[in-house]
Amino acid sequence: MGRVYTLGSSTTALAPNVPPMLELQFGVPMAGAIICNLNTRLDHNMLSTLLKHSEAKILFVDHKLLSVVEEAIDLLERMHSKHPRVVVISEPGGSGCEYESLVSSGVTEFSIIRPNNECDPISLNYTSGTTSRPKGIVYSYRGAYLSALASVFIRGGTNICLRRCDPEDIFDNIMNHNVTHMDGAPTVLNMIVNSLLTNQKPLPHKVEILTGGAPPPPTIISKIEELGFQVRHVYGLTETFGPATLNLWKPEWDRLPCEEQMEIRARQGVQIFVTEEIDVKDPITMESIKRDGKSLGEIMIRGNTVMSGYLKDLKATEEAFAGGWFRSGDLAVKHPDGYIEVKDRCKDIIISGGENISTIEMETVIYNHPGVLEVAVVARPDDYWGQTPCAFVKLKDNVDVDERDIIEHCRDHMPHFMAPRTVVFDDLPRNSTGKVQKFVLREKAKLMGSLSY
Amino acid sequence: MGRVYTLGSSTTALAPNVPPMLELQFGVPMAGAIICNLNTRLDHNMLSTLLKHSEAKILFVDHKLLSVVEEAIDLLERMHSKHPRVVVISEPGGSGCEYESLVSSGVTEFSIIRPNNECDPISLNYTSGTTSRPKGIVYSYRGAYLSALASVFIRGGTNICLRRCDPEDIFDNIMNHNVTHMDGAPTVLNMIVNSLLTNQKPLPHKVEILTGGAPPPPTIISKIEELGFQVRHVYGLTETFGPATLNLWKPEWDRLPCEEQMEIRARQGVQIFVTEEIDVKDPITMESIKRDGKSLGEIMIRGNTVMSGYLKDLKATEEAFAGGWFRSGDLAVKHPDGYIEVKDRCKDIIISGGENISTIEMETVIYNHPGVLEVAVVARPDDYWGQTPCAFVKLKDNVDVDERDIIEHCRDHMPHFMAPRTVVFDDLPRNSTGKVQKFVLREKAKLMGSLSY
Repeated sequence: MGRVYTLGSSTTALAPNVPPMLELQFGVPMAGAIICNLNTRLDHNMLSTLLKHSEAKILFVDHKLLSVVEEAIDLLERMHSKHPRVVVISEPGGSGCEYESLVSSGVTEFSIIRPNNECDPISLNYTSGTTSRPKGIVYSYRGAYLSALASVFIRGGTNICLRRCDPEDIFDNIMNHNVTHMDGAPTVLNMIVNSLLTNQKPLPHKVEILTGGAPPPPTIISKIEELGFQVRHVYGLTETFGPATLNLWKPEWDRLPCEEQMEIRARQGVQIFVTEEIDVKDPITMESIKRDGKSLGEIMIRGNTVMSGYLKDLKATEEAFAGGWFRSGDLAVKHPDGYIEVKDRCKDIIISGGENISTIEMETVIYNHPGVLEVAVVARPDDYWGQTPCAFVKLKDNVDVDERDIIEHCRDHMPHFMAPRTVVFDDLPRNSTGKVQKFVLREKAKLMGSLSY
Repeated sequence: MGRVYTLGSSTTALAPNVPPMLELQFGVPMAGAIICNLNTRLDHNMLSTLLKHSEAKILFVDHKLLSVVEEAIDLLERMHSKHPRVVVISEPGGSGCEYESLVSSGVTEFSIIRPNNECDPISLNYTSGTTSRPKGIVYSYRGAYLSALASVFIRGGTNICLRRCDPEDIFDNIMNHNVTHMDGAPTVLNMIVNSLLTNQKPLPHKVEILTGGAPPPPTIISKIEELGFQVRHVYGLTETFGPATLNLWKPEWDRLPCEEQMEIRARQGVQIFVTEEIDVKDPITMESIKRDGKSLGEIMIRGNTVMSGYLKDLKATEEAFAGGWFRSGDLAVKHPDGYIEVKDRCKDIIISGGENISTIEMETVIYNHPGVLEVAVVARPDDYWGQTPCAFVKLKDNVDVDERDIIEHCRDHMPHFMAPRTVVFDDLPRNSTGKVQKFVLREKAKLMGSLSY
């Protein structure tokens, strides 16, 4: 906490999920270097920024992404900045397969280079950020070790690598390789549910699907489970090495009505066993909030599986750890059984006439409408109420739904004051990691002008 | 390593497997004290020695063991030594149930006292030793945490506590509580196999039984699996927080003949995931032995789940860690796949005419004889050969077997030079943890005089 990190030797990798990526996760730290995985959707501007910020010495790049790398390196050269040596990962048997020839030139007697201290950095992980202020999250060996103990890696599972996220490919691979576990953000679950043929056969065996990154809408959980998946809902951030909580199912919940079960399934749950402490606290007083399912507070986490800090950003690191806990920026309630439920991101919550409105709760209701494919709700400035909810909706193909239908649907399923005042039908803007960019929608909502009643 | 340990506050517990014992494992460290579990089979002399050595402040004792405690305390008083305050664990509802009244007087707002340093001692565990030199193994919080991650504790399993180890009780509890996992030394497996009625029904569901402490004879594994148990063979020492290796089964072994499978099942296997490093080394040069299934070396272990040291015994601690590894004292071979197989304790191996003879291998063969209940093989001094094998055998009831039968059986199943020269029919002496006391048998064998050929 508050330490300044200098990189001994950073190695970056820019590739989709292909076997060399998996090898690099182990091989790079075993060679004494720090592994930094970059997002394949980055443009050359952001890429050059991150290569510079991470002081990358070597860049492993998938052959299909070589052009964006060349542009980024051109840019670095024009700025007279150092740039990494590039190693291309080609298709097996392809020409110029530098990665494979590098691997085959290795010596089998090589001794693993171990860290001097278990708190030394093992990897660098960039999360969303701007070119002016990239956020490079530093993981320690200690944290990575404990985090691995809570994953299927420790069981020696076989990994199936998919170049792209395609529902047909996913089903084919599950069948061909008897896949038992997979990971996927709610967007992926949504894609699977909506893209399949209506005569899609259910899976021949149960597949456990770990989902997180955003609260999965209950309707999507219910639909994907009909296909033979078993959803395990986890919650965490890049800063917490991924999953920090798990929605651990209690047998007595099996007897509840289906709808109530789906509500419970969307909760974030309880800490996983490598998370030392997680709590929902008042961000000012740092007091734990009541376990009443109503009081809002911020989720805070501490322990081994929390990042060491943001690279070269002491200020952001200190802010993130103010009060001795990592502040998630997520607003949540605690149920009487201790289970946590995220209500919103701190910056997304809508305050209308003094009432807190959770955009996640609204989105859950709107997702239930049969014509809706995707939805995001943001605040729209309002002279009288302060803010009112504005819903951006992407409809399914060939459905006939208008603003009135959506608002009526909301009024039927939630308190009237929570229903959106405005509904906009449009595609949703997403960032490079597939997350909806609510700040773009907030700008759009603002430009629509304030409403007066 | 090499540190001297002083105890802040030690709390001892002397009780069979009853629920308060389980509570104390967590409650005592949470109260900031060190938990020390004592063996229920100790006599008052050894008990007084350990109470003094551990500087026990409080002793929790099961009501059925109160008399030995009173004798031990009398002894301490006569020596003008301090003695611990005694808290009696009575049957629920019984009179003088001090433990329960102590628990009920606790405050629910009590804050857990956490260690200042994760390497601080959490528990003290006495292993075999004499009254003149007790060996108190110190565990750290760090090691105990990681060790717990490799156990069923982390899954929140329900523990069934058994006052005594009785096969009928074991079966009843498996049925009544749908037990899925249990632990038991090979002696317990043997007891189950030999004490059951011939018309014993197999279990209604698979029960995984973790066995270790001594290599389980293949015939016993095979017999207990017929009853519905699935044996998982682990190897470790008290000094390694229990299990350090697991006989991880490879699917391709399913196709081998049954006898060969049983041989493989008796191997100690590969390190479990919290064991940092385990190797079989030449105890002098510290070089790894060949993976040829033949070369003998000593099993050595290092990592977080190795003891901090022996309490108040720097010399023994330094000897145990000579060369930077914990020396197990067990002789083993390494198979080409890296699987370890224990051949003998360093001090038990028989050297006859320059050949190493594994007493464990001999015992395995003798166990196969249908009339044998228990067996232990030791060296007998010999003027010509140096040593020869001497087998101590306990026969099953009502069988007619003599020395000649046992020797013939051995010659049919192993090289002639390995067959015992002497067979003694007798009960086997065991220590307080149920282990056969080979030093007692060695003394007996020596008194029988040297044989000349």
